[in-house]
Amino acid sequence: MFFVSDNAAPVPPEVMAALTRANEGYAMPYGADATMAGVRASIRAVFEAPEAAVYLVATGTTANSLALALYCQPWATVFCHRAAHIAEDECGAPEFFTAGAKLTLIDGADGKITPAGLDAAIAGSALGGVHNVQRGMVSLTNITEKGTAYTPAEVAALTAVAKGYGLPTHLDGARFANALVATGATAAEMTWKAGIDVLSFGGTKNGLMGVEAVVIFDPAKAWEFELRRKRAGHLFSKHRFLSAQMQAYLQDDLWLRLADQANTAGQRLAAGIAATPGCALAHPAAANLMFATLPRAAHRRARAEGAAYYIMSPDSSMEGADDTPQLARFVTSWCTTTADVDRFLTLIRG
Amino acid sequence: MFFVSDNAAPVPPEVMAALTRANEGYAMPYGADATMAGVRASIRAVFEAPEAAVYLVATGTTANSLALALYCQPWATVFCHRAAHIAEDECGAPEFFTAGAKLTLIDGADGKITPAGLDAAIAGSALGGVHNVQRGMVSLTNITEKGTAYTPAEVAALTAVAKGYGLPTHLDGARFANALVATGATAAEMTWKAGIDVLSFGGTKNGLMGVEAVVIFDPAKAWEFELRRKRAGHLFSKHRFLSAQMQAYLQDDLWLRLADQANTAGQRLAAGIAATPGCALAHPAAANLMFATLPRAAHRRARAEGAAYYIMSPDSSMEGADDTPQLARFVTSWCTTTADVDRFLTLIRG
Amino acid sequence: MFFVSDNAAPVPPEVMAALTRANEGYAMPYGADATMAGVRASIRAVFEAPEAAVYLVATGTTANSLALALYCQPWATVFCHRAAHIAEDECGAPEFFTAGAKLTLIDGADGKITPAGLDAAIAGSALGGVHNVQRGMVSLTNITEKGTAYTPAEVAALTAVAKGYGLPTHLDGARFANALVATGATAAEMTWKAGIDVLSFGGTKNGLMGVEAVVIFDPAKAWEFELRRKRAGHLFSKHRFLSAQMQAYLQDDLWLRLADQANTAGQRLAAGIAATPGCALAHPAAANLMFATLPRAAHRRARAEGAAYYIMSPDSSMEGADDTPQLARFVTSWCTTTADVDRFLTLIRG
Amino acid sequence: MFFVSDNAAPVPPEVMAALTRANEGYAMPYGADATMAGVRASIRAVFEAPEAAVYLVATGTTANSLALALYCQPWATVFCHRAAHIAEDECGAPEFFTAGAKLTLIDGADGKITPAGLDAAIAGSALGGVHNVQRGMVSLTNITEKGTAYTPAEVAALTAVAKGYGLPTHLDGARFANALVATGATAAEMTWKAGIDVLSFGGTKNGLMGVEAVVIFDPAKAWEFELRRKRAGHLFSKHRFLSAQMQAYLQDDLWLRLADQANTAGQRLAAGIAATPGCALAHPAAANLMFATLPRAAHRRARAEGAAYYIMSPDSSMEGADDTPQLARFVTSWCTTTADVDRFLTLIRG
Repeated sequence: MFFVSDNAAPVPPEVMAALTRANEGYAMPYGADATMAGVRASIRAVFEAPEAAVYLVATGTTANSLALALYCQPWATVFCHRAAHIAEDECGAPEFFTAGAKLTLIDGADGKITPAGLDAAIAGSALGGVHNVQRGMVSLTNITEKGTAYTPAEVAALTAVAKGYGLPTHLDGARFANALVATGATAAEMTWKAGIDVLSFGGTKNGLMGVEAVVIFDPAKAWEFELRRKRAGHLFSKHRFLSAQMQAYLQDDLWLRLADQANTAGQRLAAGIAATPGCALAHPAAANLMFATLPRAAHRRARAEGAAYYIMSPDSSMEGADDTPQLARFVTSWCTTTADVDRFLTLIRG
Repeated sequence: MFFVSDNAAPVPPEVMAALTRANEGYAMPYGADATMAGVRASIRAVFEAPEAAVYLVATGTTANSLALALYCQPWATVFCHRAAHIAEDECGAPEFFTAGAKLTLIDGADGKITPAGLDAAIAGSALGGVHNVQRGMVSLTNITEKGTAYTPAEVAALTAVAKGYGLPTHLDGARFANALVATGATAAEMTWKAGIDVLSFGGTKNGLMGVEAVVIFDPAKAWEFELRRKRAGHLFSKHRFLSAQMQAYLQDDLWLRLADQANTAGQRLAAGIAATPGCALAHPAAANLMFATLPRAAHRRARAEGAAYYIMSPDSSMEGADDTPQLARFVTSWCTTTADVDRFLTLIRG
Repeated sequence: MFFVSDNAAPVPPEVMAALTRANEGYAMPYGADATMAGVRASIRAVFEAPEAAVYLVATGTTANSLALALYCQPWATVFCHRAAHIAEDECGAPEFFTAGAKLTLIDGADGKITPAGLDAAIAGSALGGVHNVQRGMVSLTNITEKGTAYTPAEVAALTAVAKGYGLPTHLDGARFANALVATGATAAEMTWKAGIDVLSFGGTKNGLMGVEAVVIFDPAKAWEFELRRKRAGHLFSKHRFLSAQMQAYLQDDLWLRLADQANTAGQRLAAGIAATPGCALAHPAAANLMFATLPRAAHRRARAEGAAYYIMSPDSSMEGADDTPQLARFVTSWCTTTADVDRFLTLIRG
Repeated sequence: MFFVSDNAAPVPPEVMAALTRANEGYAMPYGADATMAGVRASIRAVFEAPEAAVYLVATGTTANSLALALYCQPWATVFCHRAAHIAEDECGAPEFFTAGAKLTLIDGADGKITPAGLDAAIAGSALGGVHNVQRGMVSLTNITEKGTAYTPAEVAALTAVAKGYGLPTHLDGARFANALVATGATAAEMTWKAGIDVLSFGGTKNGLMGVEAVVIFDPAKAWEFELRRKRAGHLFSKHRFLSAQMQAYLQDDLWLRLADQANTAGQRLAAGIAATPGCALAHPAAANLMFATLPRAAHRRARAEGAAYYIMSPDSSMEGADDTPQLARFVTSWCTTTADVDRFLTLIRG
């Protein structure tokens, strides 16, 4: 009953096996390994984007920050949701990598920006000529930080607003596979076909040790990306071990199968919580991440049996009135079992 | 006969086994894994530094740049050898992480700075008050980029110059284990006992997939380091896999055994080259890295049989006069075999 | 009838005379001019702060940005009002000078932050340890961007909140003299006695050509400030001309007399607008800056006679229905005449 | 006998008069003043560059740093002379404005880079692909920091080397007028006709209070320059006072007359020193700046009578052997008199 985070899960055996296979003899360093060529071809094929530039880094913060720095000038701003990972959870990495760009925070229900909200934010910005920061780009997250999903049509509606202002767009896909599984979209439909210019293609939350791809649909940006990556310490000498993980991830749709497992568990968990008297989801749960309020007594019973997850309410104490609602975050992963979910549901039902 | 770089070598079985062991169940992310506590304790023990702050990152450029940023203000300069990795091979990462500090390049034979050279460089700098950049810190590299080693006494003599000006000191120990093996020094003797304030403790070139430790002997700097690391995208969620590698590295002195293997091979290779008519080492070879001039015919014979290494001369062609001397770089690693070395020596001797 | 901005006004004769006097013979450059010593002493006396560090720069953006950079780390955030000049009107200068700090924007009526609002913003921030940016400092503006004033007690209440979190505080005093005149406070009461650590002491909007002082109440910060100023290109070689302006500004309370003239005109204008049927002030007008809605016909009549000021409504056209209310900004300066004000009031009254 | 620096001289009466004239009524701020349009036109005419973008800033460090930031990426390097002002005297401002670019320092006699020296520096750089910083741009200084001058042909030879590598070029013209007077070149001949892309056009050292123009021969860079200037706090609200100074400077060739006065005095001083037994110029003196060794007794006599200038020798004491040679720097300005020069020469001759 471990629902703390998908990034606390182990690595699937296919990936461990790939690492072992990769550990044969010498390999040219810094991305010149033979495996990387295959990874690049695979990702281009998955995305139906034969010209895309594809790079591997080790953390999601890095993927996001490099992508933003590639498209947003230091004197510009990135329009994003107030709860975006780039705004809330990266200790100012976007500001560091962009040399001081701003983030303009947009409110929106369930972690989602609406086209009207985006349009209002952009239209209301940069009205003072040289005196204020300029409109830079738009960054979306899918699965959102609240556990909801944008459909390709929703992404397209948002990028259409951005394009109306001439702005490039980034998609933070730390849970990109979960978003595809949740929506049934293809990788292409969710990205370039929906107007996305650069994608953080997550691997770590979905089973890898620490590998994310950055997929840049305009290959003219490739060399600048390489320089920025190296300069930030994110070019790996023993790159073959990143390549090998990503190769295994893509092989036989492992990435989609892992996400499907996580989402299936998440959907079972969400439906079970929603059906539990006194419990309520805070947002629609589209994938493997959800927020829900449960009465304290339910938390107490689950915790007593070892369930692990974050309580987000300021009052997170297990001491106090039984029926006080407390907001919690639950994340399932590729290795969450049905038994775990069901045991948790039994516990909260008392 | 692969002498391109130690960072192109595979990972020893102990490390692979540790990764497999680490891949059990869930682990708290971001360095809160249980293994990291052990790693911290082990490094403190190895360094006889019970208060040291210890952090893991994935690349040497990162370890160096974060260490420099921790001690050097943006308006100051880092005194280092002209050939230093931080100057030549990191695409300006020190400038990026420090928000624009300078590097002051110091010449010195065989990749080594002398106390007199360091003193002259510092004394000749920052004479214009607010108008020039200030004296920031000193960075040394051991094993140096030319394959030579500083003894602890040499390090101490250099840090004494630095301390005379009130400057902190960094040691780039990408090949720290090789330096200890080469000099017989302990980790403490080579670092804080010799006046070093912060160390990049290399793992990757000596057998890990991609793990370096930063050892900060003044724990008051710890929190700032954590913020800088996160902000640069170098805090790993699945940190346990870094911890596990480092744990295996330290276990039963694996790190020193690996370095001993690399150095032994390197010394055999260096001695063999030096003893070959027409060949000469460019610098004393202290460990597993060396530069030597060989006549083109020798290179041609070795290459024809698959020997791999960099020729550094502008004229690196295999076509041309047989006796033209060409400078080459050779690096041995933990998995270089005696047979490989001897076969190479046989080939260059024709 | 020029109400566009106080920074479009000319320079009073006392300042021109001081420039002429300063233009005698040679003077040591870079702030070593004799006049600067007197300026420093005068500002310390005015602020009853005998230890304060005092520096001159040429623009308000510079004064603010250097002050923020002095106190806010790159991985931290500055809490300020959503309408703050540092947020809206400096093209990201705070982000540039701080190497990428954030601004956390706080809403508040009439351009003012409340203690509760500030407390909520700080308390709600930086709850994620290393994952989010840290609490950095608080920046207030007085006269606010909406033309209101903080009393010393209000400033003290806000800095008390900041100090409760251990945060330093900055006051953007681009219109500091106007704030003192508006509230009757002394310079000390409005700053360090009210808990302010660093002040941008405006001169340009109140009659100087382009001189602002930065007053740092903790002199331990002095040398870092000097380095940051030089590094940003803001140390003037012919510094005597900045010193001379500031000297004249302080002489015989010229700065307060100029602000009194501007405020008197502003108060007359505000009262007149408020008393005009169909017109209304958008915020209480405390000094020389105000926002008011006037019917389009009133604007049309005033503009036709040459009145100059900004219309802030999206529909700023003079074409259209007579009674459409349009929001405008009016700023008076030291040289605004009663005749100008009265003529304007006559015009808008039709 | 004030030879400390040309930036310690007063402002000529034409400039003071222009300031007084500019101080009439209101003027639109931030460069929208009417005078600036005339300045732009005048500079374009002077440079025979009808499309050039022209901006004013207040310090030479700013002009240089903004020009470099406009053309040099953060991951690149600026090739310049080891003694360049941007390297030695700006406290790392180029690194700050460029977000961390490097400077590659080139040696060369008499403060001048040779085409061969430049070619060697560029050719020897950036050989490691993504691992090192990239070739960014070339920056020259004329009058050089050693008081010598480049002819237009020499500038053209250097920019030809730069262009051969595809690199843009900057000219630090803090003493641009002095360079034109020294060489007889026109402004166009010394800049774009000689391959210069962006010029720091100095005013302050040649008589202005604090105004430099940046002349960008490719107008496509204009908007980015405006944003960078604003963001660095260098856009002046009361810009008319910068415009007025520059207008007076250009009017009736005042700028060239001032430089002619400075150079004439400098040449008289240089010739006189060179003709004095025991004294020697350290470099050819082309304009108003020179370095010379004089015996201590000569310095002692001059200083005793009030001569002011910097002694550069580490031993700058007036105590000691009479005949010890001490290196000094002498700078004349537009207001240096023949009498001053001759009196100094008489004194050093004893």
